[in-house]
Amino acid sequence: MPEPTLVGPVEIVGAGLLGTSVALACRRAGLEVLLSDVANGHVRTASGLGAGRARRVEDQPQLVVVAVPPALLGEVIAEQLAATAAYGAVVTDVGSVKSAPLEALAGRTDLTRYVGGHPMAGSERSGPLAASATLFDGRPWAVTPHDGSDPEAVALVTALAELCGAVPVRLTPEEHDRAVARTSHVPHLMSALVAARLAEAPTEHLSLSGQGVRDVTRVAAGDPGLYGQIVAGNAAAVTQLLTEVRSQLDALIDAVAGGDAEAVRTVLEQGVAGARAIPGKHGGPVTPMSSVFVSVPDNPGELARLFADAGESGVNIEDVYIDHDPGRPVGLVELVVATDAAAHLRGSLDSRGWATHQ
Amino acid sequence: MPEPTLVGPVEIVGAGLLGTSVALACRRAGLEVLLSDVANGHVRTASGLGAGRARRVEDQPQLVVVAVPPALLGEVIAEQLAATAAYGAVVTDVGSVKSAPLEALAGRTDLTRYVGGHPMAGSERSGPLAASATLFDGRPWAVTPHDGSDPEAVALVTALAELCGAVPVRLTPEEHDRAVARTSHVPHLMSALVAARLAEAPTEHLSLSGQGVRDVTRVAAGDPGLYGQIVAGNAAAVTQLLTEVRSQLDALIDAVAGGDAEAVRTVLEQGVAGARAIPGKHGGPVTPMSSVFVSVPDNPGELARLFADAGESGVNIEDVYIDHDPGRPVGLVELVVATDAAAHLRGSLDSRGWATHQ
Repeated sequence: MPEPTLVGPVEIVGAGLLGTSVALACRRAGLEVLLSDVANGHVRTASGLGAGRARRVEDQPQLVVVAVPPALLGEVIAEQLAATAAYGAVVTDVGSVKSAPLEALAGRTDLTRYVGGHPMAGSERSGPLAASATLFDGRPWAVTPHDGSDPEAVALVTALAELCGAVPVRLTPEEHDRAVARTSHVPHLMSALVAARLAEAPTEHLSLSGQGVRDVTRVAAGDPGLYGQIVAGNAAAVTQLLTEVRSQLDALIDAVAGGDAEAVRTVLEQGVAGARAIPGKHGGPVTPMSSVFVSVPDNPGELARLFADAGESGVNIEDVYIDHDPGRPVGLVELVVATDAAAHLRGSLDSRGWATHQ
Repeated sequence: MPEPTLVGPVEIVGAGLLGTSVALACRRAGLEVLLSDVANGHVRTASGLGAGRARRVEDQPQLVVVAVPPALLGEVIAEQLAATAAYGAVVTDVGSVKSAPLEALAGRTDLTRYVGGHPMAGSERSGPLAASATLFDGRPWAVTPHDGSDPEAVALVTALAELCGAVPVRLTPEEHDRAVARTSHVPHLMSALVAARLAEAPTEHLSLSGQGVRDVTRVAAGDPGLYGQIVAGNAAAVTQLLTEVRSQLDALIDAVAGGDAEAVRTVLEQGVAGARAIPGKHGGPVTPMSSVFVSVPDNPGELARLFADAGESGVNIEDVYIDHDPGRPVGLVELVVATDAAAHLRGSLDSRGWATHQ
């Protein structure tokens, strides 16, 4: 059986941030793209960005991408399967949860032509104006066939993820939901719980905030409306994991209050193991990394000068953190590099007049 | 009453990362620095770095800085107060918790000349070789007088923080401990709980990890031994806050499991409020920020080229995040800039051939 080729047309239902970005990526690859949205303004805006043209009744897309809010997914997927039944289009979606829409569809319609999808990309902004053909570059894109999915449909949805520059990751819908509960939904909720403790803190206490708490609470700033919908759509997996967290939190409280240093240390060591379990850059094994800290005046161009000087050293910078310092116009920049290159980078920057430390 | 001037000599007891860094900062300011450590090797190493000379019996320091592990603080502070009683040196420390050492000292000795301190700086590395005169640049430095502290001693410790380039923040020892429980110890423990859930996850689930979970779990990679000691020394404040977190976690689990969208949203909104409560850069009001995303090939020099081009635009970059992409050699760099400068930066980068999106 030959692999099906993604030749288009691709129809995008819902021309928001994700839908329009998929459309732009398809256009970049030369495919014909058809746009539809309950908001006509979105179709006009997306068309104006070069994302395709409004869908016409006689169009026969090869692939339909449903990119509507989580609560509407099941209904719109069913509509699209019905509307394209005569010519057998494949239907996929880009929703953040995968089991709930499938349960909503079960028994209502033939789901052979449906394969779920979920690109791990987004933005704090929404709407077609925030879209980009590069939104998915290098991101994981979960492809989540159900038991009845046609293998050719699975191959076509996988081809879409690749065409968008993403890395397809094949999971069942249930596995996907457990995975994102663990890697996204529960971290977000726990971040919100930590941040909620800050909301009630005296200002002078918050002045002691360092980079750690900023990192932990960063995602908590995300849109409560959207995240509320996502959590609601994945309630079972989220509840199970939160219950595990509560059980370990109970034990941790007992350990801290009772002075059980060994038990506290066990939790901290599990934390180290978990932080290290996250895959390394580009999915490869984790390379030992070291940090070089550099004091940088807070003026335009200083970071450019720093990176130019770092570039001269020939050392590849794997990560960057900028510490926001209270009360003084100097920034502390942390450059994360391979451990065996750190000394060379530091020497190189020192020789160019930067104040560095490890 | 004239303010006392910090003229030295400054004695550093414990020539590890923090002690040696304070020593180097004092030397940078031209003060005489005396070093002592139970490990003679540390004194030799620190001396070799230009951090001062070994302390001699006849030396009479103006200020003694105790920089020993948390569990030893009370004992060493008492020793130093006794040893310097004849000439009335001021004694401070750089420990992460402030009430417990004070309680250990209470009634044992006259504490007039003792004022606690805690610079909010550190490193994943330890020992004098990791030290730097710039470690404290722009960092908060808690100065924590107790009820009996001599005002001149408080002024001298404040002067030390300023001389080291830090921003002094005056708090009582109890306030300090509650503040760091909230802004450091509890965020660290919650990060460890989230990370612990990852340690047991299947690899293919972890492949969906995005920037959010990396941020939330970053601090969890820290040294369990050191953090265990810190948490043990601040058990009361940490226990109280963890109990508050548990109470809200209980309510959150009920809300998610019971489909109470309103209650989930309330938690998420408190999270947004808390994330925004962290002081802005340089302690000023929070400026509205926007992100510009740029796809960057993963080669030495590409980041330098990006920052050089960004520098040409005249826009000041407030923060940088680099997303670690699985499976492909392209990085996604997020440049955080003032919202009213984002469009200009994006246009400027686009015109230089970068692929950007918001």
